[in-house]
Amino acid sequence: MTTRGRFITFEGIDGSGKSTQARLLAEALRAQGRDVVLTREPGGSPGAEEIRRLVLEGDPDRWSAETEILLFTAARRDHLERTINPALTAGQVVVCDRFADSTRMYQGLSRGDLRALVDQLHDLMIGRDPDLTILIDMDPDLGLSRAKGRQGHEERFEDFGLELQLRMREGFLALAAEFPHRFRVIDGARPIETVAADVLSLVEPALP
Amino acid sequence: MTTRGRFITFEGIDGSGKSTQARLLAEALRAQGRDVVLTREPGGSPGAEEIRRLVLEGDPDRWSAETEILLFTAARRDHLERTINPALTAGQVVVCDRFADSTRMYQGLSRGDLRALVDQLHDLMIGRDPDLTILIDMDPDLGLSRAKGRQGHEERFEDFGLELQLRMREGFLALAAEFPHRFRVIDGARPIETVAADVLSLVEPALP
Repeated sequence: MTTRGRFITFEGIDGSGKSTQARLLAEALRAQGRDVVLTREPGGSPGAEEIRRLVLEGDPDRWSAETEILLFTAARRDHLERTINPALTAGQVVVCDRFADSTRMYQGLSRGDLRALVDQLHDLMIGRDPDLTILIDMDPDLGLSRAKGRQGHEERFEDFGLELQLRMREGFLALAAEFPHRFRVIDGARPIETVAADVLSLVEPALP
Repeated sequence: MTTRGRFITFEGIDGSGKSTQARLLAEALRAQGRDVVLTREPGGSPGAEEIRRLVLEGDPDRWSAETEILLFTAARRDHLERTINPALTAGQVVVCDRFADSTRMYQGLSRGDLRALVDQLHDLMIGRDPDLTILIDMDPDLGLSRAKGRQGHEERFEDFGLELQLRMREGFLALAAEFPHRFRVIDGARPIETVAADVLSLVEPALP
């Protein structure tokens, strides 16, 4: 698909600071006069936000891993059709907090080895990868203490604890090695402003 | 998968009487002392019923055909895991009003030719076909007048009208020809009791 915009995603474990960095990047690019859409997953469109609520609220075992993957993929399809693709076609920069790589990690690894299923479903129903993915890498001890310091009702995934976060960190780094053409890894255990400056210096050369 | 029960589905256009026939079959089998689970799609488990509401309520264009297919498949996966498979494993007869064939028809044909996509998604995420599918065949003029005589808030699919129902009838008959090993076609334009007797005579030889 030819689009004039650029699709940039942020990935990382809970508490890595990726949401903050996504917001700071959007602000920095807007300050340069660029047209930026800041969005997030799961969610990012009215329909996808409704699906997000259905998945994240309630008992952690209310959905099997496979049903959860289907619901996240439905939300992603809606988000892509209603928010991301129209913005890219209009030449905007889309900055998205989590995308398919989070499903590859959290649903693909956390409840059995479903990575192949996640990939097949992605190829069949989504078929769109980011132009650039910023992985905010961080020691899970630090990430978890940051995540626990936040308020929020959607703590299901953060409740899985340190052991999962360690596996997720390794998984994200392996994913970055698997897709080196679009992944950039940034050390998130530094002051927010330092990380943000690094992010901006990596993103700017990738913009039109 | 080896299961001791039997999985019987009813298909047909709106107003064909398949819901009534599913109920009458369940009652007749129970009267014989059989252990029967009567269920329906979309829905059939608490989670799937929530997804059903998400899909069927609101603006008909709120979801694209592809997102709708994903949501129905998520609901079906939940229904299969929580209701159908446990019942079959326990040796029960499962009678289900609509299943994947309805998605093959309504989502696969009504909004562009998505049949191949529906089939690929079914193979990847569901992978279970009924042991026996009863197609209640009926002239759409008759079916539509019956459907319009009912009350209900979920009229989205019935609102598509006669032209769609004509295509659906042809589609269901073609599907029955495609899967002759599990489809049986019954003329639904006769008295309810006559149809019910025909259904029972087709089902009984297929039971353990």
